[in-house]
Amino acid sequence: MTKVAFLGPAGTFSEVAVNSFGLGEVESLLCTTIPEVFESVERGKADLGVVPIENSIEGSVAATLDALAFDTSLEIQRELVLDIRFSLVASPGTSLADVREVVAHPQAGGQCRRWLERHLPGRPVVAANSNAEAVETAVATPNAAAIGPALAAEIYGAEVLEEGIQDYAGNQTRFVLVGRGIQAPTGHDKTSLALFMKRDKPGALLMILSEFAYADINLTKIQSRPTKRQLGDYMFFVDLEGHIEDPAVRLALDCLRLKLREVKVLGSYPNAR
Amino acid sequence: MTKVAFLGPAGTFSEVAVNSFGLGEVESLLCTTIPEVFESVERGKADLGVVPIENSIEGSVAATLDALAFDTSLEIQRELVLDIRFSLVASPGTSLADVREVVAHPQAGGQCRRWLERHLPGRPVVAANSNAEAVETAVATPNAAAIGPALAAEIYGAEVLEEGIQDYAGNQTRFVLVGRGIQAPTGHDKTSLALFMKRDKPGALLMILSEFAYADINLTKIQSRPTKRQLGDYMFFVDLEGHIEDPAVRLALDCLRLKLREVKVLGSYPNAR
Repeated sequence: MTKVAFLGPAGTFSEVAVNSFGLGEVESLLCTTIPEVFESVERGKADLGVVPIENSIEGSVAATLDALAFDTSLEIQRELVLDIRFSLVASPGTSLADVREVVAHPQAGGQCRRWLERHLPGRPVVAANSNAEAVETAVATPNAAAIGPALAAEIYGAEVLEEGIQDYAGNQTRFVLVGRGIQAPTGHDKTSLALFMKRDKPGALLMILSEFAYADINLTKIQSRPTKRQLGDYMFFVDLEGHIEDPAVRLALDCLRLKLREVKVLGSYPNAR
Repeated sequence: MTKVAFLGPAGTFSEVAVNSFGLGEVESLLCTTIPEVFESVERGKADLGVVPIENSIEGSVAATLDALAFDTSLEIQRELVLDIRFSLVASPGTSLADVREVVAHPQAGGQCRRWLERHLPGRPVVAANSNAEAVETAVATPNAAAIGPALAAEIYGAEVLEEGIQDYAGNQTRFVLVGRGIQAPTGHDKTSLALFMKRDKPGALLMILSEFAYADINLTKIQSRPTKRQLGDYMFFVDLEGHIEDPAVRLALDCLRLKLREVKVLGSYPNAR
C-alpha cells in the first residue's frame, strides 16, 4: 500500500487532494507543517507527499516553493487543481434553525462570511485550528455547526446541512504530489524550474526569456523571489510547457546552465489544465 | 485627524504597521477583509488604508494584488517592511510555570510550534480568530497565555512573558499605505505596475523586459498571474526602481501603452529598502 504524507488532521482539503490523485488504496501519514511532509518522504517514512502550492485567493504557498527550491531532493510527480468548496455540517438531526454557533478555521470563516451573515446572522464564529478540528468540535457540541470539506463530515460522523457556502466562486488550490525521480513524458507535460541568478547581472531575466523564445517554449508562470541565502540575491520560479526530455527544453536548459548559478528542475509532469 | 482603515481587531500586526508608518495621531477604522479596507477609503469613510501585500513565509497576498490591479482607483502611497515578532503574553502576575493552555491564531501557533514544544510541552493550543482575539481571550482565562504582537498585550492589559518566540528569524511582512494620487518623487522611489497582455502574444514579456532594459530600469519584482476575467488571459505585476515622472520610466511606459492591452500604475513611492 502506498504511504502518503500530507497536512493533517484527517478530513482537510489536503486529504481531499490525496483522494483525488487516484493513488489507489493509501496509508496516511499526517503532518503538521509543509517541511515535515517533505522530510517524511525524504527519510522514507512515506512514499509520496501531497502539498498545496498555489491558491487562487491567497496566492503562492511560499513554504512549498522554498522547500522545492532550497531544501529537498524530491521532485513534483503530478499536479491537481482542486475546487475549494465549503459545507456547513453538524451532528445528525441538527437543522439550520437549531444552530447557535459556528466553528471554523479563521480562513474558512472569512471565505464564508457573507453566507453566514445572510443565513446565520448574529451567531458567534468560534475559531478552530483546522477545518477538520472545526467539524470534530461541532459534532461534539449541541447546537453547533462547522465549516469544512464534505469529506470531514463523512469522517467525523456529521451531516451536511448546506453545500458550497463559500462567498466567491472560483476558489481553487493547486496541489502537487512529490516523490523521487522525474516522470516519463506523456506528450502534454509541464516543467517547473528554480533558476538561481549570478549576482549583479541585471539583464539575466531578459536572456532567460530569449533562450526559451528561441526554443519556441511557452512559459505559463514566472515569479521572482529573494533567495534568503544572501541579501540582494534573486531567483525565479518558472513553469513551462514541455518535458525536460524534449530536445527544445533540453537545449534551453543546457544554455541556461552555462550562464546561471544553478538551474534546478523541480519536476516534469502531466499538465492538469 | 487622519482616519485609517485596516484589518482589525485592535492590536493586530496591521495596527502595528499603521503605527509604524508615523502618520501622527490617527483614528482607526477596523475592517474584516482586505476589499473592505479599499472600499472604505474609496467611499470616503477613511482617508488612507493599510494592507499587507507580501510575507516572507506565506508569499504574496493575492487579495491585495487583485484589489490594486482590478478593483480600485487608489494608489500605493508608501511601503513598510515589518518584522513579525510574536510574544507570549498573559494576564499580569502569570508566570510561564502557571500556563496550562495557549490561545493562538492557527498561523501564529504554527509559526511558534517549536518554541511551544520546548517551553510549554503538552499544553493544548486553543484556536482564536485573530492574534488580538487570542490575547483578549487569554487575559480573561486563568492560567492561559496567548501568542500575539506586544502591542496587543498593551491594548488588552496583558503582560509579556517572553518576546520573539517565533521559530524562524526573518519573518517579515510588507505593508502598503493606499490612498488617492501619486506621491511626488523623492529620488529613491519605486513604481509598481500591473501589465495586462493582449491575447496570444507569447513574446510579450520578452518585449516588456527589453523596453525596461533599453531604458536602464532595474526591475525588483516580476510575477505572472491569470487575470480571472477571461481564461488564458495573463498579466504581470512588476516593481521597478524609479518614479513614473522620471523621463526613462515615462518613456518605457509610453512604449508599453502602445502595445499592451493596459498599463495600470499601482503607485510610485519611496523605496523602503
